[in-house]
Amino acid sequence: MSIVSTVNTEMEEKVKLSEELWSETCWEIGESRFDPDQAITAGSNFMIGNGYMGYRGTFADDRAGQYPALVVTDTYDNADGTWKELVTAPNGLFTTISCQGKDILWRQGGFREYERRLAMRWGEWSARAQWDTPGILVEEERFCSYDDLHLLTSRTRITALGEVALEITTGIDGTVWSLNGDHFSSLSLEEGPDCLEASCVTGEQGYHLVLREDARLRSGPEGEIEPCRRTALDGTLCRVFQVSLREGQEVVLEKRVVLYSSNDLRDTTKITSDAARGPLPSLAEVRQAVAAGLSRAVARDWNLLREAHRRVWQERWASADIMIGGDPVAQTLIRYNLYHNVIAAPAHADHLPLGARGLSCQAYQGAAFWDQEVFNLPMFLFTEPETARRLLVYRYRTLDGARKKARDLGYRGAFYAWVSGDTGEEICPSYFFRDVLSGRRIRNHFNDWQIHVSPDIAYTVWKYVAATGDQEFLYRYGAEILFEVARFLASRVHYRPGLERYEIIRVLGPDEYHENVDNNYFTNFQAQFVCRYAVETYDTLAEEHPQTVRGLEERIGLEKSERDAWDDIARRIYIPAPDSETGLIEQFQGFFELEDTRPEVIKKRLLDPGEYWGWPNGIAVETQVSKQADVTQLFMLHPQACSREVMKANWEYYEPRTQHGSSLSYAVYAICAAWIGHGEEAYRYFLRSCTVDLLNTGKAVSGGTFIGGIHTAACGVAWQIVVSGFAGMYLTRDGFGFAPHLPPEWESLSFRLKRWGGTLEITLHRRAMTVKALPENPRDIQITLGSAEVSVAPGGQVALPLEG
Amino acid sequence: MSIVSTVNTEMEEKVKLSEELWSETCWEIGESRFDPDQAITAGSNFMIGNGYMGYRGTFADDRAGQYPALVVTDTYDNADGTWKELVTAPNGLFTTISCQGKDILWRQGGFREYERRLAMRWGEWSARAQWDTPGILVEEERFCSYDDLHLLTSRTRITALGEVALEITTGIDGTVWSLNGDHFSSLSLEEGPDCLEASCVTGEQGYHLVLREDARLRSGPEGEIEPCRRTALDGTLCRVFQVSLREGQEVVLEKRVVLYSSNDLRDTTKITSDAARGPLPSLAEVRQAVAAGLSRAVARDWNLLREAHRRVWQERWASADIMIGGDPVAQTLIRYNLYHNVIAAPAHADHLPLGARGLSCQAYQGAAFWDQEVFNLPMFLFTEPETARRLLVYRYRTLDGARKKARDLGYRGAFYAWVSGDTGEEICPSYFFRDVLSGRRIRNHFNDWQIHVSPDIAYTVWKYVAATGDQEFLYRYGAEILFEVARFLASRVHYRPGLERYEIIRVLGPDEYHENVDNNYFTNFQAQFVCRYAVETYDTLAEEHPQTVRGLEERIGLEKSERDAWDDIARRIYIPAPDSETGLIEQFQGFFELEDTRPEVIKKRLLDPGEYWGWPNGIAVETQVSKQADVTQLFMLHPQACSREVMKANWEYYEPRTQHGSSLSYAVYAICAAWIGHGEEAYRYFLRSCTVDLLNTGKAVSGGTFIGGIHTAACGVAWQIVVSGFAGMYLTRDGFGFAPHLPPEWESLSFRLKRWGGTLEITLHRRAMTVKALPENPRDIQITLGSAEVSVAPGGQVALPLEG
Repeated sequence: MSIVSTVNTEMEEKVKLSEELWSETCWEIGESRFDPDQAITAGSNFMIGNGYMGYRGTFADDRAGQYPALVVTDTYDNADGTWKELVTAPNGLFTTISCQGKDILWRQGGFREYERRLAMRWGEWSARAQWDTPGILVEEERFCSYDDLHLLTSRTRITALGEVALEITTGIDGTVWSLNGDHFSSLSLEEGPDCLEASCVTGEQGYHLVLREDARLRSGPEGEIEPCRRTALDGTLCRVFQVSLREGQEVVLEKRVVLYSSNDLRDTTKITSDAARGPLPSLAEVRQAVAAGLSRAVARDWNLLREAHRRVWQERWASADIMIGGDPVAQTLIRYNLYHNVIAAPAHADHLPLGARGLSCQAYQGAAFWDQEVFNLPMFLFTEPETARRLLVYRYRTLDGARKKARDLGYRGAFYAWVSGDTGEEICPSYFFRDVLSGRRIRNHFNDWQIHVSPDIAYTVWKYVAATGDQEFLYRYGAEILFEVARFLASRVHYRPGLERYEIIRVLGPDEYHENVDNNYFTNFQAQFVCRYAVETYDTLAEEHPQTVRGLEERIGLEKSERDAWDDIARRIYIPAPDSETGLIEQFQGFFELEDTRPEVIKKRLLDPGEYWGWPNGIAVETQVSKQADVTQLFMLHPQACSREVMKANWEYYEPRTQHGSSLSYAVYAICAAWIGHGEEAYRYFLRSCTVDLLNTGKAVSGGTFIGGIHTAACGVAWQIVVSGFAGMYLTRDGFGFAPHLPPEWESLSFRLKRWGGTLEITLHRRAMTVKALPENPRDIQITLGSAEVSVAPGGQVALPLEG
Repeated sequence: MSIVSTVNTEMEEKVKLSEELWSETCWEIGESRFDPDQAITAGSNFMIGNGYMGYRGTFADDRAGQYPALVVTDTYDNADGTWKELVTAPNGLFTTISCQGKDILWRQGGFREYERRLAMRWGEWSARAQWDTPGILVEEERFCSYDDLHLLTSRTRITALGEVALEITTGIDGTVWSLNGDHFSSLSLEEGPDCLEASCVTGEQGYHLVLREDARLRSGPEGEIEPCRRTALDGTLCRVFQVSLREGQEVVLEKRVVLYSSNDLRDTTKITSDAARGPLPSLAEVRQAVAAGLSRAVARDWNLLREAHRRVWQERWASADIMIGGDPVAQTLIRYNLYHNVIAAPAHADHLPLGARGLSCQAYQGAAFWDQEVFNLPMFLFTEPETARRLLVYRYRTLDGARKKARDLGYRGAFYAWVSGDTGEEICPSYFFRDVLSGRRIRNHFNDWQIHVSPDIAYTVWKYVAATGDQEFLYRYGAEILFEVARFLASRVHYRPGLERYEIIRVLGPDEYHENVDNNYFTNFQAQFVCRYAVETYDTLAEEHPQTVRGLEERIGLEKSERDAWDDIARRIYIPAPDSETGLIEQFQGFFELEDTRPEVIKKRLLDPGEYWGWPNGIAVETQVSKQADVTQLFMLHPQACSREVMKANWEYYEPRTQHGSSLSYAVYAICAAWIGHGEEAYRYFLRSCTVDLLNTGKAVSGGTFIGGIHTAACGVAWQIVVSGFAGMYLTRDGFGFAPHLPPEWESLSFRLKRWGGTLEITLHRRAMTVKALPENPRDIQITLGSAEVSVAPGGQVALPLEG
């Protein structure tokens, strides 16, 4: 499948995104052909969610084989001894329709006028189809409410195209898809007063998960139809409605599902460990919360529920939207990606991670990786900084887990988990791939050698504080994160006496094919940056906010001598320098001595297409083929790390040697390509990055491990490709700088940026850039464009000519 | 096969060593059954040699398929691009006999009264057999002369058992077994005046190798028979003798083969690199040396040649022999092992290594490993110290290679080659095993991570100087080795700022299954020992022999600050301490966290019996199963490293977890077992170590790589098992200490020890130990036994009672 950026003539006004997908207004994606083999991909692409729960874009009658899932945040549980992951709740939207005694099942196709769509604007899923024999039209719409995060609701309209006898079976499917074992030690489905209830207890943690479903069938505004019986088949509990319709007549099924888990009722304000959250609430308490939530939902008209939900979305898009003129495909893609970043983010909480697959499935354990800070967070930092803050507070709340990991491995400070769930303890298993040739498991060292996650988080503390000026965050949370990371680094570096330098030995850099490497440029640079920032912060705090230093001295035993050690490391850590002739920076020590080849060459060496390419003996290990950007990745975080010439030399060297085995890779190459003037490549990589899920270029299963679902990092970083890459936005001391390189297809580009509590509206045209400051901005913001520097006062507006 | 230590009744007076092997006087091994499938094993076991050449114990008519080989030292050459190894010369003893027009070939068997024997006492091979139809008795004897190292000679007596017409074809076989490619870019076989000549040029190095053969057939003392024709068939050049014999008549074929390589004529006194040896001599010069050598050999009666050869052996055994009373099997085994250590040692030169397979074949490249110092050398140190000195001077002469290796890997000083040939440059390939499941080559890091070889050599400098008092060696050679190794270590350690200690990261210890480990106890301990010794030596030299320090300041830029750095390392390097409760010492950091299992358990996990067990993903890597002794190996070198209780705890822990995949393993466990009072185990491991080759418990090919041949380290260390282990000999400041633990089978044990140029004769009986000092000893030597301390004056003798 490939992107076709022109409007398809047959579809007239629709933007064709691929052979299968289209958009009408650039605010939705839709499909008009149903492919049952695309259940995993489409289920993810069309999913809805609200940061508390995710509901896959499957059909109401789908069973486990079609991978429906209601994924609930803050329910980490280990069912199989290996994978600690979020659980999938019973499916409260489960509904089947039978017409004239014959089951109408979406998954079997056999309909016409089919359409499934996801309205990114409203976070709403809808589908419609017409079955000829017997003749009915079914139209369903659903959303996970942003107004009440515990509410999932749907409305299904069935219109008779002839005279039909309908049987609608609707309730809860308790036999749902779970990736790695059955999480529920008990699961009961019961009929309560006016509702059905699923009540589950997770096997490892003993969390309660209670879900209630209310279903109403109406024929006309007032004509509520009572269910005729209850049925419990194959792990479901449903109520059955029977109704006969004449041609043109319709019935409407409204379903309201409310769910809570034990953790939703626990204290989240003072978490630094699971124990700090206090005891688990009783089942009765959980049930009470569900009952109250369902009462509220039932009491409101469905349209009003939707209205309240939409209001939240409207507000969020007001900050987050990016408008691209002249390129409807790009316009649709960017919104699709921003949408998925938004629904993945637990914006309501500051004790939860943004999962690498969001809430699109259980893959990647619903947990945060370094992706959270480097790929997902920047969009929020500049559009919804309170969400960025919460994600960082989550890192504060999980410091104990990071401290434990460091301690367990013989280090000090905070070594953040590679895979970070609720407590921040490392939940990345030591074994997750198999050698397909021998069938033996492979020990990968993502969990103990990939140390850059810690400085990446501390770096993001810097970035957050720099962008927002949120000193209170720094005093309360950021400084402790920062110092604990610097402390970790100080215990992790090695000093080479003869060379009089610090080194970092035995790591994985971002490129995960090469484990066990030394002096990885990315890692060392980040470590240096963090040590330097820790010293600066220490000095500033000691002078300006000594009570923070005193507090940390008491709380974590901070010592002045540590600050001096960080200073020494920052000064003397080994940072591979660009080669004086070629400008090349070695990804890690010895990289350039590896076989210099290309992904397409070594691919031919595979004995089995399912082989893992990396450590310890995959085909890439002894070559310069990298899984993803590594040196270039550093540039993305530190645009000023080197000259544009050096950046260009390295981009051009590493790019053909990169396999893009990670969805994180394209965006990095896109952003840097924009900076170095490789406009076509930048645009090409932008499209590849934005369509990782949409065009399903990846595989859902690798080495026996399910890796499907939404690549939220690729979604989040789409914002950076456009704003940091094409618009060339960068932070300056007093505002923002820009070095725009818009794709030639783009007539205009417009987005909002927040800083210090104020908002700017940036619009780039071919020849000029306008910057508008909202009237409520608290201060002037300075704009740098080339050699021009102007200040934009609250309510003010400036226009700057663009060169070229 | 198992050792049967009683005399077999059928064999009457013979000592039965195995089902196949016997000894008559404990000075030889013999076999009376011929097994053509044992060609590799028997060819090694029965080999002869003299430190310059090795000639495998095959038969005169054997061709390449039976693995005959004349391996010549100092001929390192790379034929296949991977393996730099010694070459095998044309076979100058090649002879076939045809009788009544029918070829008599040993390899086809079909004889009776067969016997092959190796007389260790004289370094002589002999074989005899009787063919019934036609009836002849063939008796051959041969040796590599210790009187003239370039001479290989044989005498074959053929006795007619009826009337027979013989055709004896004898000459040179140029089509010999070569392990890794054909080393000769040219090889010509020519008939010269009175001799045949093979003249070869090696492909990589362009060395000449010239071999001449003189063959004389006599019937009676004066009746010399002329050859009737020349024949050149199938890569051989031979002369053919025809003779008819009556019953009881005999003919005797005497062959004298002399060979030289280019390197034999080059300067060896000032070598520090190949270039320093000067240009290669011309072919004419090599030929002239061969011609002169052959003239000398031909001019002497064969019995006199043998007499001169035997005189040398007699002298060597006078120093080296160990006499064991009451255990003829052990007596034979120990001599067999000492013999192989002797013939492997290039005692004539100080620029050549003692190969891990000696000159028994090309396996292990004819090169030295750490085995040389730790396993082979100690026997010489106490019985033939001039040979020990030469082996260490070889390490001095190869310092440039070690410096180059250190430099190439980014270090300073001398990082000795894992596989060290003539120049000392690393000739260990990066790839030598294959993953039998995928067919892919495996990158093992023996050549760049197994750093303990450097401190092992420096440690042996200490041991040599301590035992001999040879200060001149220290000034001229030892100090430079030592300081360059300490310098290497100083550049190789890492300092951990938080822990305030030095660590050694990413090594292989002696146990080769676990690569990429940190703080290997053996390696760190050796490094500490060497740094400490370097500091002491520096200080002593600075005070007592400042010109040595000045010379090193000039020659290698030695600085006082380096001495201080070594001091700091010696003080602060991390040495894993015994656990306070269990006494266990961790082999390396994290070892105890590995799966705790046993070799026999994990063996069942093999998918293919040919799988390599070690790095990167063999079955042992993630378990506590070790290939060989590691912690225990350290004890062997430093008996005072810990208490006997700690040693015992560790022996008992590690022993069942050791696979003994290395022939170096048994001896270490034997020696330590003797020390900790595990007498039965000590004896059992002694037998296993001594019969590694004799009973062919190993395999000849592993991972596609030929690893057959004599395990010279196991042979050399046999001396240590008996003297250090059972007799419990250790060095004291003024002499020797003993803590005997003789196996109960042994009635007596007697051996000689040299120190400071003097010799002691030690005899242990059940109840007493006697020590006799030779009259020519230069000084008194002190003997410590338990709490007793006595001095033995030159010519004196003491008897000390043994406890228990």
